[in-house]
Amino acid sequence: MASVTVVGASGYLGSELLRILVNHPKVDKIVAVSRTYAGKPVSSLHKNLLGVFDQEFVDLDLDRIDTDLAFFAAPPGEWFAKLPGVLDRGVKAITLGGKFRIKDAAIDKETYGGYENPELLDERVYGLPEIYRKEIKKARFVTNPGCYATSVILGIKPLADFKDSIDLQKVAITAVSGTSGAGATPSEKMHHPEVSGNVRPYNTTFHRHTPEIESILNESFKKLRISFVPVVADIKRGIVASITLYAHSLDADLTKHYRSHYKTEPFVRITPEVPEMANVVGSNYCDISAAYDPKIKRILVISSIDNLLKGGSGQAVQNMNIMMNYDEKEGLHMLGGHP
Amino acid sequence: MASVTVVGASGYLGSELLRILVNHPKVDKIVAVSRTYAGKPVSSLHKNLLGVFDQEFVDLDLDRIDTDLAFFAAPPGEWFAKLPGVLDRGVKAITLGGKFRIKDAAIDKETYGGYENPELLDERVYGLPEIYRKEIKKARFVTNPGCYATSVILGIKPLADFKDSIDLQKVAITAVSGTSGAGATPSEKMHHPEVSGNVRPYNTTFHRHTPEIESILNESFKKLRISFVPVVADIKRGIVASITLYAHSLDADLTKHYRSHYKTEPFVRITPEVPEMANVVGSNYCDISAAYDPKIKRILVISSIDNLLKGGSGQAVQNMNIMMNYDEKEGLHMLGGHP
Amino acid sequence: MASVTVVGASGYLGSELLRILVNHPKVDKIVAVSRTYAGKPVSSLHKNLLGVFDQEFVDLDLDRIDTDLAFFAAPPGEWFAKLPGVLDRGVKAITLGGKFRIKDAAIDKETYGGYENPELLDERVYGLPEIYRKEIKKARFVTNPGCYATSVILGIKPLADFKDSIDLQKVAITAVSGTSGAGATPSEKMHHPEVSGNVRPYNTTFHRHTPEIESILNESFKKLRISFVPVVADIKRGIVASITLYAHSLDADLTKHYRSHYKTEPFVRITPEVPEMANVVGSNYCDISAAYDPKIKRILVISSIDNLLKGGSGQAVQNMNIMMNYDEKEGLHMLGGHP
Amino acid sequence: MASVTVVGASGYLGSELLRILVNHPKVDKIVAVSRTYAGKPVSSLHKNLLGVFDQEFVDLDLDRIDTDLAFFAAPPGEWFAKLPGVLDRGVKAITLGGKFRIKDAAIDKETYGGYENPELLDERVYGLPEIYRKEIKKARFVTNPGCYATSVILGIKPLADFKDSIDLQKVAITAVSGTSGAGATPSEKMHHPEVSGNVRPYNTTFHRHTPEIESILNESFKKLRISFVPVVADIKRGIVASITLYAHSLDADLTKHYRSHYKTEPFVRITPEVPEMANVVGSNYCDISAAYDPKIKRILVISSIDNLLKGGSGQAVQNMNIMMNYDEKEGLHMLGGHP
Repeated sequence: MASVTVVGASGYLGSELLRILVNHPKVDKIVAVSRTYAGKPVSSLHKNLLGVFDQEFVDLDLDRIDTDLAFFAAPPGEWFAKLPGVLDRGVKAITLGGKFRIKDAAIDKETYGGYENPELLDERVYGLPEIYRKEIKKARFVTNPGCYATSVILGIKPLADFKDSIDLQKVAITAVSGTSGAGATPSEKMHHPEVSGNVRPYNTTFHRHTPEIESILNESFKKLRISFVPVVADIKRGIVASITLYAHSLDADLTKHYRSHYKTEPFVRITPEVPEMANVVGSNYCDISAAYDPKIKRILVISSIDNLLKGGSGQAVQNMNIMMNYDEKEGLHMLGGHP
Repeated sequence: MASVTVVGASGYLGSELLRILVNHPKVDKIVAVSRTYAGKPVSSLHKNLLGVFDQEFVDLDLDRIDTDLAFFAAPPGEWFAKLPGVLDRGVKAITLGGKFRIKDAAIDKETYGGYENPELLDERVYGLPEIYRKEIKKARFVTNPGCYATSVILGIKPLADFKDSIDLQKVAITAVSGTSGAGATPSEKMHHPEVSGNVRPYNTTFHRHTPEIESILNESFKKLRISFVPVVADIKRGIVASITLYAHSLDADLTKHYRSHYKTEPFVRITPEVPEMANVVGSNYCDISAAYDPKIKRILVISSIDNLLKGGSGQAVQNMNIMMNYDEKEGLHMLGGHP
Repeated sequence: MASVTVVGASGYLGSELLRILVNHPKVDKIVAVSRTYAGKPVSSLHKNLLGVFDQEFVDLDLDRIDTDLAFFAAPPGEWFAKLPGVLDRGVKAITLGGKFRIKDAAIDKETYGGYENPELLDERVYGLPEIYRKEIKKARFVTNPGCYATSVILGIKPLADFKDSIDLQKVAITAVSGTSGAGATPSEKMHHPEVSGNVRPYNTTFHRHTPEIESILNESFKKLRISFVPVVADIKRGIVASITLYAHSLDADLTKHYRSHYKTEPFVRITPEVPEMANVVGSNYCDISAAYDPKIKRILVISSIDNLLKGGSGQAVQNMNIMMNYDEKEGLHMLGGHP
Repeated sequence: MASVTVVGASGYLGSELLRILVNHPKVDKIVAVSRTYAGKPVSSLHKNLLGVFDQEFVDLDLDRIDTDLAFFAAPPGEWFAKLPGVLDRGVKAITLGGKFRIKDAAIDKETYGGYENPELLDERVYGLPEIYRKEIKKARFVTNPGCYATSVILGIKPLADFKDSIDLQKVAITAVSGTSGAGATPSEKMHHPEVSGNVRPYNTTFHRHTPEIESILNESFKKLRISFVPVVADIKRGIVASITLYAHSLDADLTKHYRSHYKTEPFVRITPEVPEMANVVGSNYCDISAAYDPKIKRILVISSIDNLLKGGSGQAVQNMNIMMNYDEKEGLHMLGGHP
C-alpha cells in the first residue's frame, strides 16, 4: 500500500488525481496540498468528491512531504527548488507541468524559461509508458507528458518503421481540445459565453507542446518537424488530433501495423473506425486509427484521448503504478459512458 | 459470483448496464441480448467498451435465459409475456421500463396501456432502495424507477414528516434533463441541430412519470398532487429538479432533517450548497438540498442525479446488489470528474 | 436621424446595442464609450463588428455627452451622479442596469444599495413597452427592465384579469438562462469547464429581479408574491421561464386571452405550442404559452426571450424608438435562425 | 422588386432562405414549396418565423413556377428533369445541392451519380462571387457552392500568385463544422446524445466537397491536390477550416496580400488575429487569416464561415442580388452577436 501527496490539489489535474486515487486499491493515504484552499474541505471545491473524500486541503511545507510518492500538479513555483530535497528523502515524484519535459536546455529555455535545478535533468524520465516503460520502472522522478503531446506522439510513433518513406518536414496536425486543458483559472478566453457555440484556433504560431512532441519523436525519427494547430471547442474534456503525413509509397496495412505495435499496451486501442472523442472521455484510453491513401500519398492518423486522464492525471497514475510495481491498470478501469 | 443477462443491451440503459457490470467484482458472466444487433460486436455500437467487453450481441430466446439475474432494458415487447416463465425458472428480474411501475391498474391502463400479466403486480417491488430496501432484498422481481421519478421522490420523501404543514395540492416541479433520457432512437425532437443552443419544455400537460411519482409518494403523503414540467437542455446526461412546495409554517432545519433522514444511505448526499448537475453526472449519487423560506412560506428542494445511473442503470445494479446480498455499493464507486 | 452614445460599450449589452444600432436606419452617429478599452478599435473586442463598425472606443467625459440619446450599459459607477446633468442638457437616457428599476426606496436600498440621486425616481419610467408605452413616449429617462423580469412580467401580466381566482401567494417560477446574463467579466462560476455539461440553480434564496418583478406586477395584482429559482445552463443566450400558478377555477381559454391581450404588440407572440428558447434567440420576440389544467388547478405559463435582446439591448432600442417617435420595430427586424 | 420561389423550403437551407428573404427589401413575393409539409403553416416548422412569415407550404408543380427566380434547396429529385423547362420560361435558378457543382462529367459521375440534363452544364455558373461575379451577373442558372468548399476555396485562392513556391500536392485541411450541415433529417450520427460532448472526424477517406474544391482551385493552381478531414463538433452552425500548405520560400506579407486580393469584396474579412467561428455565425462573412512561417516553411490559412449563410443560403441570396442587379449586400446585413 502506498501513501501519496498531491501538490496543487485544487486544480483540474489535482482534482482528477484525487478522484482516481480515492478508489485506487493500493493507496491508503492521500494528502491534498493547496495553499489557497488550506483548511477548506476538498469537497467544497471538488463537489463530485462529497462523501467520498472528506479531508481538507492542507498547506504543507514541501520539505515535510513524507509519503511514498508525490504528484506535483501545481503551476511552477517554489516546489521546483524543493524537488531535489523531496527526492533525496526517498519520495518518488511525478510532475504534471511543462517543466522538465524538454531535455534540451536551450529549447527549454525558450519554451519554459529554463531550469532552476538542471541537475535533475539527467535522471528525469519522460512519463510515456508506451515508449519509456522500462525507464519509468526504475525512475524516482518522472515528468508527465503534455496532453496534446500524448495524443500526437502515440499517434505518430509507430510510423518510425516507415520513416524513410515519409516526408518528415511536412507533418500537419490540427488538434481539437476541450477547455479544461487551459486549467481552472478563469480568463476572458475561457469565459463561458466566449466559448459556447464557438470553435477557436489559438497559439497557431507557437504552442509549447510542439518542441516536446518533436524532441520525443526525433529520438526515433531524427528530423521530423510538425505544424501544430490547436483548436478549442465548446466541450470541457477530450482531444482529437488529426495528423496528416505524406509518404511517396507505403507498403503496409497500417491498421495491422498499429495493432501489432501496441498489442501489449493496456491503454492504447486501434479502432476499426476513425476514433471520436466521446469514446475515450472518462477513460485512460488513447484511441487511434491510421490509414494510407495511395491516391493522394497521404497517411492520416486520428488520435483521441481524455486530456485530463491519458493526457494528464490518468497517465500520471499509470506512471505511479509502474514506479511502484503495481498492476499498470490498477485504479484506472474507469470507462466513459455511451452516451 | 453472479451471471447476468441484459435484454435490450443496444439502448442507452443497456449500454450503461454493460459498462457497470464489466467492472463489477461479483459478476463473472454477462449475456448481451439484442435482436437488432445480434452477431455484431458490442463494441461496434458501444465504442467506449472496445477492448473491455469483447463479446457479441446475441438474439436469445428469452425462454432460455439461465443466468442468476436478468435486466430488461428493452422497450415493452414480447418479453412481457415471457417474464413469468423467466421468474419461474429462478432467474431474478429487474425491469427498466415504465411497465409495472404503477401498481394501480386503472392508472397504469391510462399511462402505459395496461398489463398483460397482472398476476406479477402482486409481487413486483418498486426498486427505490431508499424506501423499499427491505422488500427489494426479498424480491425476485423489481421494477426500476423512472429517472425523473427517482430525483423527485428522493427530493420530496423526507418532507412526509411535515405533511400536515404543507399545501399538498400545490407542488410545482420544473426539472431540467439531458437528452439521453429520450433513448437511442433518432427523432426530429432530438436531432442535434434542434437541441443545440436550445432549452425546451415538453410534455407539460402530461408526463408518464407524474402518476408514478404521486403513487409512490402518496403511500406516505396520501393527497399530494404535483405539477410537473420537464425541460430538455443542450446536454446529454443529468437531471436537476427544482421542487417548490408551500408550508404555512415549518419549525425545522431542513438540512439537518434531510441529513438525518438519509444518514445511512450510500447514494444520497445532502449538499451544503444547492446541487448542480455536473457533480453527480458519472456517479450513482443523488444530491439534494432543501430549505424553508418563512418570508415566502416556501420549501425549495433541489435534487440532482445522472439520469442513466441513479436514474437508470446505476440504480438497477444497486437493486441487483441488494437482491443478491452483495455490498450495495459494489460496482458503483464510479465518480464523475471535476470538471 | 439620431445620434446615440453607448456608455459601457465593451460589455455584452453594449456589444448588442452597437450591433443593432449600426444597422438602424434612423441612427447616423454612434459614440462607443469605454474607459478600459479607449483607443482600441471596437472590432478588436467585438470581432463580429469587424468591417461594419470601424470606430474606436472613447473615454468620454460624461459631462460632454452631446448626442440625442445615451444608453448607460456600464455597471453602476460615476455616471449615476452625472445622469441629472446629462438629462438637463437635453440628452434622453436609457439605463440598462438594476439601479432605478425599483421605485420603492426601501426595497431598492436592500437590493441595490439605494439611490444617489433619488430626485430622478419621480420621472424615471420602467421601460417595458407592453405596459408603459404611453409613459415611455413622453419620458426623457427610461430604466430598462431586467432580463428575467421581462420574461416573467410579460408571462404573468395578462392573468391580472383573473387575479381573484388565483392564489397570488404561490407563484412558483423556475427560469433557465444562458450565461451571457452574467456579463463579460470572467469568474469561476462562469469559467467554461464549470458550465459545460452542467445545469446549475443559483441565487435560490434571493435574486435581485424578484422585487423588480413583484413591484411591477403588483401595480395590478396588488399582493402577488413569487418564488423565483434561476438556473444557468450550458448555452450562452436565452431564457425560458416555467411559471406555475394555481387557480381554484378559471373560465377562459388562456391562449385566446393572451392573444387578445397582446394582439397589437409587435414583439410578443403567443405560440400554438410551448415556446422553446431557440425560436427567440437572435430576435426581439417574447414567445409565450399559457394553459389552465382544471384537474390540477394549475396555470402553466412558459415565457421565452433572448436575454440580450428583448431582455436587454433589443428592448432598449425598442424604448429608444418609442422615445424618438420612430416605428417601434425600426432596427429590430432581426430573426434567429432555424436551426 | 422580385418574386421568388423556394423549392425545398422545409430543410435548413430553405429555412434560412425564407428568414433572409422575408426581410429582403427587394423581394415582394415568396412561394415556399414543400411536398411533405404542404398545407401547413411555415411557422409550424420554422418556429422562428412565427408572426413574420404567415404563409403555408405549398406543393407546387414545378412546371408552374412563375416567379422571377427560384432557389432549389431540395435534395436531388424530380426537379432536375424540370429545371430546363423552368429556365426556358424565363425563371432564373439557383441550386443549393451538390449536383452541377462539378463540371467534369466523369468526376461528377463518381461523386454525384452523373447528370440527367448535361446540356445545362455548359451554361451553369459556379456561384462563388469572389471568383465568378462577372459570369454570375449574366447567368440564368447558378449552382451554389458547398459549405466546406466555400471556406476552403476562399482561403486558398489568393495563394495562386505564389503557386510556384508551394508544394501543391501537400495541402492538408482539417475543417470543424456544426451539425446543421448534415441537414434536417434525423440520423443516428446526428442524434443529440451522440454529438453532445463529442468531436468526431468523418468521411476521412472521401468527402464530396474534395473534387469540388480541387476543380475550382485548379482553374488557377492546375495541379493542387488536397487532403480533407471534416470534423463534426457539438455546435449547430459554423465552419472553421485549418489549412496547412508548404512553400520552400515566400517573399510576401500574406496579411497584406489577402487584404489586397479581397479589398473590394463585401463579404470577406481578413482578420488581424486568427478567426474564430463565433465571429461569423449569424452573418454572411467569411473571415480569413493567412501567415507564412519560414522556420517550418508553412503557410497556415484559417477560414471561417456560417455554413448555412456564406456556406449556403446567404451566398445564394448574394448570387440572387448579383443576378438581379441589386446591391450585393441587400438583405444580408445581419450580424451574429458577441457573445
